[in-house]
Amino acid sequence: MVAIKFALLGCGRIGVLHARNLAKTDGARLETVFDLNTTAAEAVARAHGCGVSASAEDAIGRADAVLIATSTATHADLIELAAKAGKAILCEKPIDLGVERVRACRKAIEGCNVPIQIGFNRRFDPGHRAARDACAAGKIGKLEQVIITSRDPGLPPRGYTAVSGGIFRDMTIHDFDVARFMLNDEPTEVFATGSALVDPTIGSEFGDFDSVMIVMRTADGKLCHINNSRRAAFGYDQRIELFGSEGMVISDNKKAYELKHYGSTTTEAAEPYLNFFIERYAEAYEAEIAAFIAAVRDATPTQATFDDGYRALMLAEAAVESARTGKKVEVRNIA
Amino acid sequence: MVAIKFALLGCGRIGVLHARNLAKTDGARLETVFDLNTTAAEAVARAHGCGVSASAEDAIGRADAVLIATSTATHADLIELAAKAGKAILCEKPIDLGVERVRACRKAIEGCNVPIQIGFNRRFDPGHRAARDACAAGKIGKLEQVIITSRDPGLPPRGYTAVSGGIFRDMTIHDFDVARFMLNDEPTEVFATGSALVDPTIGSEFGDFDSVMIVMRTADGKLCHINNSRRAAFGYDQRIELFGSEGMVISDNKKAYELKHYGSTTTEAAEPYLNFFIERYAEAYEAEIAAFIAAVRDATPTQATFDDGYRALMLAEAAVESARTGKKVEVRNIA
Amino acid sequence: MVAIKFALLGCGRIGVLHARNLAKTDGARLETVFDLNTTAAEAVARAHGCGVSASAEDAIGRADAVLIATSTATHADLIELAAKAGKAILCEKPIDLGVERVRACRKAIEGCNVPIQIGFNRRFDPGHRAARDACAAGKIGKLEQVIITSRDPGLPPRGYTAVSGGIFRDMTIHDFDVARFMLNDEPTEVFATGSALVDPTIGSEFGDFDSVMIVMRTADGKLCHINNSRRAAFGYDQRIELFGSEGMVISDNKKAYELKHYGSTTTEAAEPYLNFFIERYAEAYEAEIAAFIAAVRDATPTQATFDDGYRALMLAEAAVESARTGKKVEVRNIA
Amino acid sequence: MVAIKFALLGCGRIGVLHARNLAKTDGARLETVFDLNTTAAEAVARAHGCGVSASAEDAIGRADAVLIATSTATHADLIELAAKAGKAILCEKPIDLGVERVRACRKAIEGCNVPIQIGFNRRFDPGHRAARDACAAGKIGKLEQVIITSRDPGLPPRGYTAVSGGIFRDMTIHDFDVARFMLNDEPTEVFATGSALVDPTIGSEFGDFDSVMIVMRTADGKLCHINNSRRAAFGYDQRIELFGSEGMVISDNKKAYELKHYGSTTTEAAEPYLNFFIERYAEAYEAEIAAFIAAVRDATPTQATFDDGYRALMLAEAAVESARTGKKVEVRNIA
Repeated sequence: MVAIKFALLGCGRIGVLHARNLAKTDGARLETVFDLNTTAAEAVARAHGCGVSASAEDAIGRADAVLIATSTATHADLIELAAKAGKAILCEKPIDLGVERVRACRKAIEGCNVPIQIGFNRRFDPGHRAARDACAAGKIGKLEQVIITSRDPGLPPRGYTAVSGGIFRDMTIHDFDVARFMLNDEPTEVFATGSALVDPTIGSEFGDFDSVMIVMRTADGKLCHINNSRRAAFGYDQRIELFGSEGMVISDNKKAYELKHYGSTTTEAAEPYLNFFIERYAEAYEAEIAAFIAAVRDATPTQATFDDGYRALMLAEAAVESARTGKKVEVRNIA
Repeated sequence: MVAIKFALLGCGRIGVLHARNLAKTDGARLETVFDLNTTAAEAVARAHGCGVSASAEDAIGRADAVLIATSTATHADLIELAAKAGKAILCEKPIDLGVERVRACRKAIEGCNVPIQIGFNRRFDPGHRAARDACAAGKIGKLEQVIITSRDPGLPPRGYTAVSGGIFRDMTIHDFDVARFMLNDEPTEVFATGSALVDPTIGSEFGDFDSVMIVMRTADGKLCHINNSRRAAFGYDQRIELFGSEGMVISDNKKAYELKHYGSTTTEAAEPYLNFFIERYAEAYEAEIAAFIAAVRDATPTQATFDDGYRALMLAEAAVESARTGKKVEVRNIA
Repeated sequence: MVAIKFALLGCGRIGVLHARNLAKTDGARLETVFDLNTTAAEAVARAHGCGVSASAEDAIGRADAVLIATSTATHADLIELAAKAGKAILCEKPIDLGVERVRACRKAIEGCNVPIQIGFNRRFDPGHRAARDACAAGKIGKLEQVIITSRDPGLPPRGYTAVSGGIFRDMTIHDFDVARFMLNDEPTEVFATGSALVDPTIGSEFGDFDSVMIVMRTADGKLCHINNSRRAAFGYDQRIELFGSEGMVISDNKKAYELKHYGSTTTEAAEPYLNFFIERYAEAYEAEIAAFIAAVRDATPTQATFDDGYRALMLAEAAVESARTGKKVEVRNIA
Repeated sequence: MVAIKFALLGCGRIGVLHARNLAKTDGARLETVFDLNTTAAEAVARAHGCGVSASAEDAIGRADAVLIATSTATHADLIELAAKAGKAILCEKPIDLGVERVRACRKAIEGCNVPIQIGFNRRFDPGHRAARDACAAGKIGKLEQVIITSRDPGLPPRGYTAVSGGIFRDMTIHDFDVARFMLNDEPTEVFATGSALVDPTIGSEFGDFDSVMIVMRTADGKLCHINNSRRAAFGYDQRIELFGSEGMVISDNKKAYELKHYGSTTTEAAEPYLNFFIERYAEAYEAEIAAFIAAVRDATPTQATFDDGYRALMLAEAAVESARTGKKVEVRNIA
């Protein structure tokens, strides 16, 4: 079997990770990389023995598949570019921070018929996936409630907050996608509220939150709760609970190893949780690329589509509006 | 020390439990019992060697303290009767299903100056209390989020649903109280939604829910989520999570014993959880009575006051309104 | 049903516990108590409204059943006295520290035909029993290995060590009994070794150990390991593992409540374990008395017989010899 | 930095694993492979783009370091060959099944002064190492007891049993090494016993055991227990407990992910454990090679020396003798 040639656009932290994963994935070959920061691009090229492209266009031209790991604002443009060039696309989330741009992008690539996968890595985490599989296999009966706890270990840099698009579009977007993935259904109503507790200036300066709680409901009454915090003292807190008519499954936090300490004041004390997404979702990132390669090779649908990216963003928009108005928002009414 | 003489009003399941706990609590003596069902009253009297009263009035007259464990509709009347007779009162929750009646009761007993404790047993659970104590001791820094999972093992009898006052006033009332206890603060905003998933006729016939999710917020931004279900296949699901700036504590479910099974398809498998409140909160019920006796004896405030009962009900009212309107409700605007 | 009248001999810590358990057990009545320390006897009598006897003989005479909770050296004499008086007997372990005395006692009471139960409380612990039941029910296939971890929270008083009979006869005796109970078979070979690590003077002054490891084997090859320490910094460490051809069950340590703490250096940290046997085996002590009462009432065999007491002691003797000789000892060769 | 060139001898299951790990380890390059089975050698060469050697001598000649992953009987010969050629050596355990051959090998390579590391992979497991580090850092006070549970998921092929050298030399050898690593001291006394419970013909035909228990003691009294079974229904059971004067650490089993299931008959049920060593010790195998490379590069001692290999075998010999004689064996008396 001929390996799929990849162009990697963006050689920041997540780009470097993807490059390394491509290197150990059968069926893939990193052909070329592009980054405005040529030092970063060259470092990746050196590490993996691939070429460096002078432009995104050039990189796209040399490859079968394009992995977009640039900054968010460029995602939609690069998707359009790659799609029109007929290349398969694996693009980091989100497609864009604005619904309008996402819609325009969707229109622009209509008819291109290239495989597109959005980087919702958590869908590929073995534990989360096993939870969904257990549910699909009927092991908890009919699904009734989903509880998603998702807390980052620490605040992002201040500069990031300013351009993040707000916590719902930037951070909760992952959880909105996980919610849809776990519910296997569309939330139709969204309520959201939040506070700036970790750093009050996130509220006073950016009008944003760092701590939020969301409740969603599907048309048939399934309920979903998401809670987020930008800071968890004990590591990256990533738990998913699926509650059904005949039982429950929980995909729990992961530790680097299973050491427990017993002393005069505490027992069964474990290490802090894996910190951060690079470590916690290491297997998910590997599986994500493998799944993309399989979809391209076998011409099957990707497991995190453009439409999934759009719908997660719609839920984020609904959350923004709900937090502003204090009312639950019907998702279909989102402009 | 002279033992406090108790009159027990109501000899149903919870009354029988209280009688047994009184029997093993130092400083208390069950003097007399009353129940319209005289067979039930006589059984308790026989088991514990106390008298049987022909009326609530008679029972109250013979005692120093009155334990009200009758049906909800009679609580407020009996509180008034006992308060006017100058007796200490331990009354099962809720005071009444209607805010108006609670307010009238409050007015009626103004100036009676008797100790009153409402039967919010969960406040006295050793694990829940240790969670609160850890928070108060600064072990998780500043409290930011409270997550309460509270699911009954199974649906109550159909007849009960009809007169329960709805899930928020009947079941969530406990969680509203626990939320206030854990937040050590007043929620000012309440959002609630729900579904009838366990038994759709609970929706179609009673206009009630059996599965609900709530989000509350305090004036200073602390967030609280409650989820309820009337049925959990794996037992009585009672978990409380306190998340703060420097850590988290979880008061987790309890099992009858710590047996784990390891086989070819599963490992670390434990037994179903204690089922139901009588078993799960056995220690809490004992501690509740001991705390009441200590408060009466030492003339200190009770740890679950009439006002606590009122405020939990106000949150339930807010939840009812929120679920109806789809808006978050300001608690102070509740009529 | 008429309650069985008990005479309690010995009003020390364990006697007080038994008195309290008798008080809450249906079918039993504490009739009289005896202790050389009359103050102790009177305190128990006052607490439970029973008589005080001037002698063990008198106490035995007034009762249907005798609960022997005196010091070890008196056990055999009191068993003989009570048996000859035709009374049912519940005697704390061990029967005696010497095999000869136990044999003489057995001979002396031959033909008395009274129910006798030895105070091997751990047999009645719900978790340990559930482990054995799971094994008996085939849930781990054929039993192959038993691992018993049994560590006290702290060293006994120095005076106690001097008269304890050594760690094997005093402390491991419980584990030898648990081993037989779990194996449902007789160990035929015993190897034992030990050290004085907690307090070296226990070795140098008493020729005893405070840390021991034992391996036993049954005729059909089942293997059993016991480890003991006189001191565990984290509480009373009581774990039993049954390993079989199709799986494993572990009866694990118990905590007062299920609180877990998550902080910047540890996660999932629980409280120290219940400390000490009064707390850890509270339910076992209750169940032990209930089982004795049921056996007396129904004329069924007790669940921890005189023979069980004898055989546990034989294993202790074998361990003593093995630790001395460095050889595994055939149990049947024990004098 | 120039990468160290490796010759891989042996392309069976463990050789393939090592080849893959070499490929992703910085500072190493797989130069050539040799296997009598040329198909196997060619497959590895193809996968990793390295040469194939026609003989071990040729392979050794082309490399800086030799990774010996051939069958046990060839280990000592290849160590001698590589040492005399002045190459660094990473050799799978055991050095040989016979003490005499190991001693002869030691003599033969005296003065060669090449780095030698024996493949005791478990020393490099992050959890086991964290346990040892916690102990070294004083987090459990003074070490007193070590308990090693080590059970394979299933019986090896029948042919393997015949040539394995017996369970102590073949399987327990790992645990003897782990014991020494954890004790940070030499066991001076060994008692061992065993049974053939999984497959009685292992006893009747091979005079071997499939289930064993061992107790060891160091000169200063530390105690160590090892239990082994050739078959655990629930996966590869690998637990290490270090018990000290001020606490305990346990390095527990690992699961592929942290999914727990809650149903009507069990709660908190997890998946079977990782199965087998390739999966369970994946990180250990990677760390083992990285440590070897660091030792070679920095001219520091390896972390699992030839002497470690010899001493583990001496403990196995002692166990064999103890199981035969029923006596504890002084390790220094082993011929």
